[in-house]
Amino acid sequence: MDKKIKGLKFVFEPRSIAIVGASATPNKIGNVLVRNFIDSRFPGDVYPVNPKYQDLFGLKCYPKVSDIPGKVDCVIIATPAETVPAVVEDCAKKKVGGIIILSGGFEEVNRHDLAQKIKDTADKAEIPVIGPNCLGVFNPYTKVDSIFLPMYKLERPKAGNIAFVTQSGAVGSTVMDLTAYYGMGMSKFISYGNGTVLDESDYLEYLMHDTKTDTIILYLEGVKDGRKLLQTMKKVNKVKPIIALKAGKGSGGQAAARSHTGNIAGSYLAYNAAFKQAKVTEAGGIDEVFDFVKIFDQPMPKGNRMGVITNGGGMGVLTADYIEAEGLALAKFNDNTNKELAKILPSYGNVANPLDLVADAGVEAYGRAIDVMMEDPNIDGLIIIVLTQTPPIDERIIHVLTKAIDEQTKPIVTISVGGTYTEVYRKILESKGVPSYNSPKAAVKAMERLVTYSKYYRQLAKAKK
Amino acid sequence: MDKKIKGLKFVFEPRSIAIVGASATPNKIGNVLVRNFIDSRFPGDVYPVNPKYQDLFGLKCYPKVSDIPGKVDCVIIATPAETVPAVVEDCAKKKVGGIIILSGGFEEVNRHDLAQKIKDTADKAEIPVIGPNCLGVFNPYTKVDSIFLPMYKLERPKAGNIAFVTQSGAVGSTVMDLTAYYGMGMSKFISYGNGTVLDESDYLEYLMHDTKTDTIILYLEGVKDGRKLLQTMKKVNKVKPIIALKAGKGSGGQAAARSHTGNIAGSYLAYNAAFKQAKVTEAGGIDEVFDFVKIFDQPMPKGNRMGVITNGGGMGVLTADYIEAEGLALAKFNDNTNKELAKILPSYGNVANPLDLVADAGVEAYGRAIDVMMEDPNIDGLIIIVLTQTPPIDERIIHVLTKAIDEQTKPIVTISVGGTYTEVYRKILESKGVPSYNSPKAAVKAMERLVTYSKYYRQLAKAKK
Repeated sequence: MDKKIKGLKFVFEPRSIAIVGASATPNKIGNVLVRNFIDSRFPGDVYPVNPKYQDLFGLKCYPKVSDIPGKVDCVIIATPAETVPAVVEDCAKKKVGGIIILSGGFEEVNRHDLAQKIKDTADKAEIPVIGPNCLGVFNPYTKVDSIFLPMYKLERPKAGNIAFVTQSGAVGSTVMDLTAYYGMGMSKFISYGNGTVLDESDYLEYLMHDTKTDTIILYLEGVKDGRKLLQTMKKVNKVKPIIALKAGKGSGGQAAARSHTGNIAGSYLAYNAAFKQAKVTEAGGIDEVFDFVKIFDQPMPKGNRMGVITNGGGMGVLTADYIEAEGLALAKFNDNTNKELAKILPSYGNVANPLDLVADAGVEAYGRAIDVMMEDPNIDGLIIIVLTQTPPIDERIIHVLTKAIDEQTKPIVTISVGGTYTEVYRKILESKGVPSYNSPKAAVKAMERLVTYSKYYRQLAKAKK
Repeated sequence: MDKKIKGLKFVFEPRSIAIVGASATPNKIGNVLVRNFIDSRFPGDVYPVNPKYQDLFGLKCYPKVSDIPGKVDCVIIATPAETVPAVVEDCAKKKVGGIIILSGGFEEVNRHDLAQKIKDTADKAEIPVIGPNCLGVFNPYTKVDSIFLPMYKLERPKAGNIAFVTQSGAVGSTVMDLTAYYGMGMSKFISYGNGTVLDESDYLEYLMHDTKTDTIILYLEGVKDGRKLLQTMKKVNKVKPIIALKAGKGSGGQAAARSHTGNIAGSYLAYNAAFKQAKVTEAGGIDEVFDFVKIFDQPMPKGNRMGVITNGGGMGVLTADYIEAEGLALAKFNDNTNKELAKILPSYGNVANPLDLVADAGVEAYGRAIDVMMEDPNIDGLIIIVLTQTPPIDERIIHVLTKAIDEQTKPIVTISVGGTYTEVYRKILESKGVPSYNSPKAAVKAMERLVTYSKYYRQLAKAKK
């Protein structure tokens, strides 16, 4: 691994942080940054850097990075573009571990000269540089947080196993906010902006070896080295599923992307082909990123035959439609399943797939139907619709579904559509690792992506033997 | 209008309600029903009907409908299928205004004999019958509510201008729950189940003349008289936009639909063609129903040229992609717009579409950009992205956006993606009539549907002259 990539550990797990451009003025980036490190109780040393101040928030303030007495693992730079090359040189002199440049004003406004200076210094000194023109990184395990957006406006997710690599800060921050909102856990967040020194491929490489990361979300606008990205995605996706979202698909979007991070978005068809070749799961929007990412913690299905359970007929019909539209299949139950399911249903019920337990169904009926379907070799995955609005469904359904996830040998998605009451159930389920969707379409699409990925994964497992 | 259709006013605006199958047993349908009428403070008379009781909840209980002394406008029946034909006959004898049959056990389990008896009686007596095998109706204006799901589990929406006609109770109830959740208002809710006496076309006809209704959502599985539906949709959609969701598209879904309401779902292509011919807006799922319905209160756009405002570059790129993918266009600003927008941007900003106000943008910049774009004849609609996470965006943005809606001459959609903090903004905006989306894709799709509908609407307006 390249020394600069390896060096990212100083950025993600630093024992000391310097903030260049630290400020006493409320709402300025250099102010929010220092405050965030204090508020999040970062356990290492924090060094504000700004020649204007003697101290800040009770911390000693230094004129330059090279004036800091001890070792400096990570430097966050938030000063005007013109000043940044000199700060990076000073960092190289000080032999810092890694640098995050938040400042904008480089490639995206045609200041390639400034960017080149940074790149030359970083390459020569072999120091990893994230940015410029970015939000930097967030690591919930070590409390490193260069996201200069107030915590009350943008929630930080809990520690988990999903990594997020994003070119755009705006998309990145909203995804982070949503990750927290959905109660999902994050391993590393990397907003890399113009990608002047390290690019998306380098971050994928780092995350492949990161023990905290199991799944990777990748948001791309334009890429400098497409061949490198394809090779890297091929390698990484085999080990850790990548969910990719590509923006700048049309000509209008491409123009917008260019003025955003200075990168050429390029032909979308080329990206689409690369994702396909690397078997990377492509999301069509931010919502699909979340729909897809939460399913990859589950057992790999052996095929595409789904068993569907519902307590609302219409939801079963809609779900059956999406199953067919997405290229999945409704499983044909084996004899034992037919026999056992008949015992669960009321006298006027029909054993069929979707299995309509009808609105009178209680929590027990769900538990028994899940157990029976989990045993049927004709079923590869379960899609469980629970309309929580019916009187017999109570909070014990959470136990039934978390138990099903604990004992699962096949992937499960659950669907609960509704308002405030239903949302509470869904959030609890999500926080217990039960993938829960508020739309049949989203749930079925996610299951299809897992089926497709697992086709590849199982071939690979076979090849290894 | 058919006398049975006209008679629906007794169901929606009754001065007296009888509940057949009223029960003292908690959680039984006949128990929840009576309780809901009491809890919702229905202003008319409520008559529980059940030979087992002398009184219920302090109300006198009658053995039969024909035993009730005064006039009975609406009867809700929740007794076993076998008993229903006799109850309907008794209702005819009593000359009630209208009937809702909640009970299942008719066409959907091949008891066409029972269904036929009900139909014969209703047709002869010219009494409207909703159902059987349905949830019935909800009218927030008159407090009629036959939805036998507890109010704490399924929120009832406030009074508004959206009507909902649904074959499925499960889909219907979740849509109602979501309508309340999103703070949107409903005029009438009709879950009609098997549609034995009155069908979807009859309800559309009624709603066309309903002064409280401006937009209609229609959920269909199978239809008995396709030609009648096409003619009715053509007529109604001209006056009030219809958003249609069709389930039972594939063979698996069709089989599920048949066992659900006993109706043949039929070829989806035929439905799709009918929607196109009637210029009805088709939704691909429950989420799209909501995405689309909330945009139709706005001025009809003159064309497809969109002006986009953002404070996050990546969100602008994504939005530009969807605009192109959906067949909308990025507007070319006129000279005045270019000149005025340049005054709003910081020195390093670019006047372009999407207009990136950058993360430093305050609420004032939004207000000025909206005003300028509203004046530009090259722009037909505005797509406004507000990432609320940035420090300068505060609650005054709500004033800016509601003012824009109050003074609008062009349609507006807003996009705010994020977690809890953002959701609060979005909910306030929605409740003030500002269409707000948490996904660029959803917002752009909705705008496209309004552009397409307005193409038809404007042709029509011209033809009228």
